[in-house]
Amino acid sequence: MKKRILLLFVCIAAAISGFAQQNLFISQNIESGTVDEQGRVTFRLIAPEAKKVQIAGDFIKKDVQQHIAGMVGAGQIDMKKGKDGTWTYTSNPLPSELYSYTFLVDGVPVLDPNNPHVYRDFATVTNVFIVGGGLADLFKVNDVPHGTLVAKWYHSYGIGKDRRLNVYLPAEYDANPYKQYPVLYLLHGSGGDENEWTIFGRAVQIMDNLIAQGKAEPMIVVMPNGHAEMQAAPGESSLGYYKPFHFRDPEGKYVANFMEIVNFVDRNFRTIPEKCGRAIAGLSMGGGHSVNISRRYPNVFDYVGVFSAGGRIHELDESVPENKATMDLVRAQIANGVSAYWIGIGRDDRGFQNAKTYYEDLKALGMPNVSFRESDGAHVWNCWRLYLSEFAPLLFKK
Amino acid sequence: MKKRILLLFVCIAAAISGFAQQNLFISQNIESGTVDEQGRVTFRLIAPEAKKVQIAGDFIKKDVQQHIAGMVGAGQIDMKKGKDGTWTYTSNPLPSELYSYTFLVDGVPVLDPNNPHVYRDFATVTNVFIVGGGLADLFKVNDVPHGTLVAKWYHSYGIGKDRRLNVYLPAEYDANPYKQYPVLYLLHGSGGDENEWTIFGRAVQIMDNLIAQGKAEPMIVVMPNGHAEMQAAPGESSLGYYKPFHFRDPEGKYVANFMEIVNFVDRNFRTIPEKCGRAIAGLSMGGGHSVNISRRYPNVFDYVGVFSAGGRIHELDESVPENKATMDLVRAQIANGVSAYWIGIGRDDRGFQNAKTYYEDLKALGMPNVSFRESDGAHVWNCWRLYLSEFAPLLFKK
Repeated sequence: MKKRILLLFVCIAAAISGFAQQNLFISQNIESGTVDEQGRVTFRLIAPEAKKVQIAGDFIKKDVQQHIAGMVGAGQIDMKKGKDGTWTYTSNPLPSELYSYTFLVDGVPVLDPNNPHVYRDFATVTNVFIVGGGLADLFKVNDVPHGTLVAKWYHSYGIGKDRRLNVYLPAEYDANPYKQYPVLYLLHGSGGDENEWTIFGRAVQIMDNLIAQGKAEPMIVVMPNGHAEMQAAPGESSLGYYKPFHFRDPEGKYVANFMEIVNFVDRNFRTIPEKCGRAIAGLSMGGGHSVNISRRYPNVFDYVGVFSAGGRIHELDESVPENKATMDLVRAQIANGVSAYWIGIGRDDRGFQNAKTYYEDLKALGMPNVSFRESDGAHVWNCWRLYLSEFAPLLFKK
Repeated sequence: MKKRILLLFVCIAAAISGFAQQNLFISQNIESGTVDEQGRVTFRLIAPEAKKVQIAGDFIKKDVQQHIAGMVGAGQIDMKKGKDGTWTYTSNPLPSELYSYTFLVDGVPVLDPNNPHVYRDFATVTNVFIVGGGLADLFKVNDVPHGTLVAKWYHSYGIGKDRRLNVYLPAEYDANPYKQYPVLYLLHGSGGDENEWTIFGRAVQIMDNLIAQGKAEPMIVVMPNGHAEMQAAPGESSLGYYKPFHFRDPEGKYVANFMEIVNFVDRNFRTIPEKCGRAIAGLSMGGGHSVNISRRYPNVFDYVGVFSAGGRIHELDESVPENKATMDLVRAQIANGVSAYWIGIGRDDRGFQNAKTYYEDLKALGMPNVSFRESDGAHVWNCWRLYLSEFAPLLFKK
């Protein structure tokens, strides 16, 4: 398929110079970030004046995986300069994954001008490519029935703002006008926003593919914005275009007002508006949110997914009233029970031991159906996409 | 507001070095593409090794406006290097507009790594900024009630593909469960896709703002994909990530099957499913589509908007059967009547004379409510955003 596109591209390129009112590219008429059938990726850049061109990307040194935004720290590869001033590099075959990269031109971090597929995560924009033939086939848009993505605003009375959330509806939703669907609330990490799971998280593709394969039940997935200070993703709220920074939510307003979101979703979509039809999961800060929200409302969510996070209940001194209140909620959640309390974390994650301890404490306290998934990797999207693709199939199988 | 954000940013930046698992930026801890209260924009880039750093952007040489993707041809501005290796440039106050730019580092076209707001149009990705205080206030997300954006797939039996479209629902839609809404079909240009109007077109913001100001009626806006060969935007279909090229639709399958889209929308949303509740408009190729679709179904659309395009009916030789068929449809459309047939084009557009001739021919033939809007500018988004903000207020005022 790739080859056919390439051929088409070459054929059409000749005709395009006549299309003067809409020039094809900023300037470089080549392709880059292309993946061949063996899973090798080739990069190209025309930079005759440059002394050094490097690639920084998360496909380099798999053993020191870093968070996507920290990729420059993961090592760089030098590209080779040809006589015509074109720098090139072709990798060895790579394991199936969605990868990110940027170039460094004489030390300046720049995007690849010949790959228009760029994703933002927090304040960082990177180019992306997918190597298929494995897990990452779930991250592709395949020829399967596609769900609907709805970007919707709700008014939070508790936070005092109009705020946006993304809602995924399974492909069959419209064809079954009297059917009610269970809901997975899927939460992002610190610095992220309501778009995070739809971009690097590939949640829409993962759900479309898992549902089409019969591995996950058709469900609604709600992706809210977890920063009470924000209305919506950077550039998509009345704050205008700004360089994202870490919002804080010291008052915990988001967690405290989460039921506004649940009620809004139950009012506006055909949900199963009860515990057996609700799951909550999130990554990093969103994992913490999932712990806290499911605990604060201890009979609202039947499934809890904690990705690369944990909860701090280890040896809490219950003579402190706050700690006692926390443990009372934990005990209430345990008494009410859940169909799954799933904790997943990478062995190279700084929070690994904390997450494991949390799992052991929950198990010791008697949390039913609690499980611990230890994976390769650190605090990165590779893990979170993997966890979603393992967690979603567990849900609502009744 | 901007100042407050900047201050916050500086305050928080210090705290962030401790946040090791999610580095803030690829590498450069500065801001760029920022607009001050006088409408001056400042660019910054740390590039100590570079010999020359320039800006290419559509704010340069307003008199030779080019299509956004052709901006490099519009002239470049040299940035000045400081002793610390930081290059800077601050513009004069700019007229209110949404602007695009890239850098050229020793001749290599690169995005600004310190402005994460990047938009793709066709195969070109550029940074953006908005100067408010005029027309571009319509392009901003303001604190007004926000509509819903729905990305939905339909099956085209005529084209033989699942295909995607974007649907804007006005903010009041959910609150009025028994109200039916008129629909504007809003079409993109050649090389574009269903996302084009939601990105550079700012259609969601323009509609939110016009409706909130009482200038436009609450309406549904449908933005389909106008290339029959495509399912969805590049990177969002089963073709995977590829460098966009110009799809062609030599068989005219898109126009021929457009009523599939209208019927799908009438089935799935609370529309006014008749002529008085339908408008169609588009830019460039989409303007041609609007001409052809409204003519082919000469009693389906009550409003037609032709942005930077025209129709070729001038002195057609009707002894040729094809031409006679075309003119019969034109006469049928005229006999049925429309509430508005609005043609807008920039004086510097290559197609200006063709559009003007088309207007004159329609007027001579007796097309009711036909009008011609001659604006500054060429074949660029500036014009199309302007035209939408002038056309939408004319619709459905009854």
